[in-house]
Amino acid sequence: MGELMTETQQSPLPAVEGPEARGEPVPGGVPGGRRGSPDGQEAAGILERSRASVDPELRRAVESLPGPLRRIALYHFGWEHADGSPAAGNSGKAIRPALVLAAVRALGGQQETAVRAAAAVELVHNFTLLHDDVMDRDTTRRHRPTAWAVFGDADAVLAGDSLQALAHQLLAEDPHPASSAAAARLASCVVELCAGQHTDTAMERRGPDDVTLDEVLAMAEAKTGALLGCACALGALYAGAGEEDVEALDAFGREAGLAFQLIDDVIGIWGDPSRTGKPAGADLMARKKSLPVVAALTSGTSAAAELAELYRVPYRDGDLERTVLAVERAGGRDWAQVQAADRMARSLQHLSRAVPDPEAAGGLLSLAEFVTRRSM
Amino acid sequence: MGELMTETQQSPLPAVEGPEARGEPVPGGVPGGRRGSPDGQEAAGILERSRASVDPELRRAVESLPGPLRRIALYHFGWEHADGSPAAGNSGKAIRPALVLAAVRALGGQQETAVRAAAAVELVHNFTLLHDDVMDRDTTRRHRPTAWAVFGDADAVLAGDSLQALAHQLLAEDPHPASSAAAARLASCVVELCAGQHTDTAMERRGPDDVTLDEVLAMAEAKTGALLGCACALGALYAGAGEEDVEALDAFGREAGLAFQLIDDVIGIWGDPSRTGKPAGADLMARKKSLPVVAALTSGTSAAAELAELYRVPYRDGDLERTVLAVERAGGRDWAQVQAADRMARSLQHLSRAVPDPEAAGGLLSLAEFVTRRSM
Repeated sequence: MGELMTETQQSPLPAVEGPEARGEPVPGGVPGGRRGSPDGQEAAGILERSRASVDPELRRAVESLPGPLRRIALYHFGWEHADGSPAAGNSGKAIRPALVLAAVRALGGQQETAVRAAAAVELVHNFTLLHDDVMDRDTTRRHRPTAWAVFGDADAVLAGDSLQALAHQLLAEDPHPASSAAAARLASCVVELCAGQHTDTAMERRGPDDVTLDEVLAMAEAKTGALLGCACALGALYAGAGEEDVEALDAFGREAGLAFQLIDDVIGIWGDPSRTGKPAGADLMARKKSLPVVAALTSGTSAAAELAELYRVPYRDGDLERTVLAVERAGGRDWAQVQAADRMARSLQHLSRAVPDPEAAGGLLSLAEFVTRRSM
Repeated sequence: MGELMTETQQSPLPAVEGPEARGEPVPGGVPGGRRGSPDGQEAAGILERSRASVDPELRRAVESLPGPLRRIALYHFGWEHADGSPAAGNSGKAIRPALVLAAVRALGGQQETAVRAAAAVELVHNFTLLHDDVMDRDTTRRHRPTAWAVFGDADAVLAGDSLQALAHQLLAEDPHPASSAAAARLASCVVELCAGQHTDTAMERRGPDDVTLDEVLAMAEAKTGALLGCACALGALYAGAGEEDVEALDAFGREAGLAFQLIDDVIGIWGDPSRTGKPAGADLMARKKSLPVVAALTSGTSAAAELAELYRVPYRDGDLERTVLAVERAGGRDWAQVQAADRMARSLQHLSRAVPDPEAAGGLLSLAEFVTRRSM
C-alpha cells in the first residue's frame, strides 16, 4: 500500500513547507471553509489525545494474544524489538482511531464510549499492513524490517489473522448499543480492503496499456478510502447518528482518503526524499501504477506513449528523469492535484451535510487537512 | 492440518469397516452408553439435514463477496471449477455446522435460529484451511488443487481473510440475543486456531528429540479441538443455555476433537490408502510430528531412539516399513488408541453433565461417534 508506506515513514508531525508556502495552489486545502491551524498543531493535538485514550485499549488487546502471536504483534506495533525487549514504539500516526473519536464528537456523542471501536479500526488497519507487506514483499515499515522479514511469512500472516479476530472480539464484547452495527460495517469494510488489495496485486502484473483510470481510482478507494470512511461511520454510529449521517460521514472519510492517496502518489514522484523517507522516484523505478502514472498513461498524448514504452521494461539507470518528465508532460501531476482538490471539496460537502456547524466539525476538518496537506 | 486433509479426502460417507467389525476395541466408541446406529446412517442423516439448511446461508455469504474473491472462495468450496464454471460441489462433510445445530437441539433450542451461527463456524473453518494450505504448501484438498496452487498465495490469503470477515459479519447482523456472545467466542477461537497453526509450523522445524507430548497435545487441541468445542458452545449459547452448560459443551467438542485427531493420526500411518485418499505413510515420509510419532519418540524405548534416528534425515526409499514398525514398537499406536478412548470418555462425561437425557444428546453422540469411528 503506497499510502501506508509513505504515511508511516514520515515523521508523525512534519513541518509544513508545502505548496502553500511556495505560493502554489493547495490541492487538499479547504476551499473557503474553516481552516485548521496552518501548522498542523491542532491535528497534532487531536492525534496525541486520541493515542492517549486508545493506546491502552489497543495494547491490552494485543497483550491478550498467546505468546508467539503476541510477540509478532508487539514487534509490528513497535512496542518491542525483534528480540522481545521493550521498544520506544512507533506505530504510526494512528489517524483512523482519531477519526473515529473525532466523528463521535462531531455528532454530539461521548468520545470515551467509542474507544474500543477506535482500537478495533486500528487493529484492522494493522492486520492489513501485516498481510499486504507479505504479498507486496515490502521489507521496511516505520523504519524497521517488516514482520515477515523478521518472523517469516507464515507468522506474519497468522499475526494478521489474529489482529482481525481481536478487532471483531473488541466490538462483540462492547456493550454499546451501536457495537453490532459497527461490527457488521467493519467486517464489510475488511472485504472491501481485501478486494482492493487483490486488484492492486493483479494490476501490477498487467501491462501499462491495460489499466484504466476508473480501475485505479476504484482500487484506491477500496484500499485507502474504505477504512477511513468506515472509521468516520463508526464514530457516527457510536454517537447514535441516523443512517443518513452515518453514510455522509462514510463518504467524507472515503473522499478524504482518496485525496490523501492522490497527494501521497504525487509526493511519491515529486516529493522531497528527505521528507518522504523513500528514495526519489522509488514508485516509478518499481513501475508502480500509481494514480498520476495511470492518468498520464491514459492521456492519449505523445508523452503517454513514451511513458508506456518506458514502463514496458524494468527500470534502467538514467531512466528516472525521463520517466518523471513523461508523467508530468502527459498531465499526470496536474490531473492528480486537481482530482485531489476535487475529492477534498466533495469530502467537505459530505461533512457539512451531516455536521453543518463548523465548530462541531472542527476536529474532523483538522484531521482531513492534516492528511492531505503534506510537504510536496 | 493433518485432521483436515484426511477428513476431506475421504468419502463423505465411508462404509464402516473399522476395528469393531474386526473385533478390535473401538477407541472412540461410546463406553456402555447409547450408541448411534452402527453403520453411521444416523450421523449421515444429521449431516445431510444440516447441509440442507446451512448451505444456502453459506452460499449466500460467499456470493456476496466482490468478483475475484468470490471466484476463489467458490472454487475453494467446490462450487465452481477454476475456470468459473459450476461444479458439483464437494466442500467436505461440514461436521462443524452440524455440531452447532445438534448442540442447539440437545439443549432444547430451535435449530433454525442458529443457521447463521453454523454458517459462521464453517466460514472460519474454511478461512483456516485456505491459510494453512498456503503455509503448509499443501497442494491438494478435497481431491483438487488447493486455492493457492490455482490462484497464487496472495489471492488465497485474501480469500481466507474475506471468509473470516464474512463469518463475523453474519454474527454481527444476526438479531438473535446470543449473537454477540457467540461472536466474541468465535473471535477468541480464531486466535486459538492461529496459535495452534503457529505451534505446528514451528514444531515442524524442530528436531525429533525436541518436541514433548504435552506440546503436541496442546497443539492438536488448539488446531482441532478448539473449533469443534466452539461449534458446540455456540449451539448452547443459541439455545439460551447457562454459562456452565456452554462450557460443558465446549469441553465435549474439544475432547471429541482430540479423539478425532488421535484417530486421524493413527489412520495416517496404519490406515488403508484406498480409504484415506493419501498414500500409505505420507505423514511419516514427510517426517510429520503427529501424535503417535511424538508418543513413540518420547517413550524412552530403544525403538524411540531408532525412530529419532530415522526422523533426523529426510525420507529415503525403503525407510517406510522400518519407520512404521519403530512407531509401533515404541508404543505410539497403542498410546494413541488408549488416549483416543480416554478423550472420548471424557468428552461424553462433559456432554452428560449438560445433557443428561440420552435421547436429547442423541444427535451430538452420533456426530461424535461418526468422526471418531472411522476405518482403520
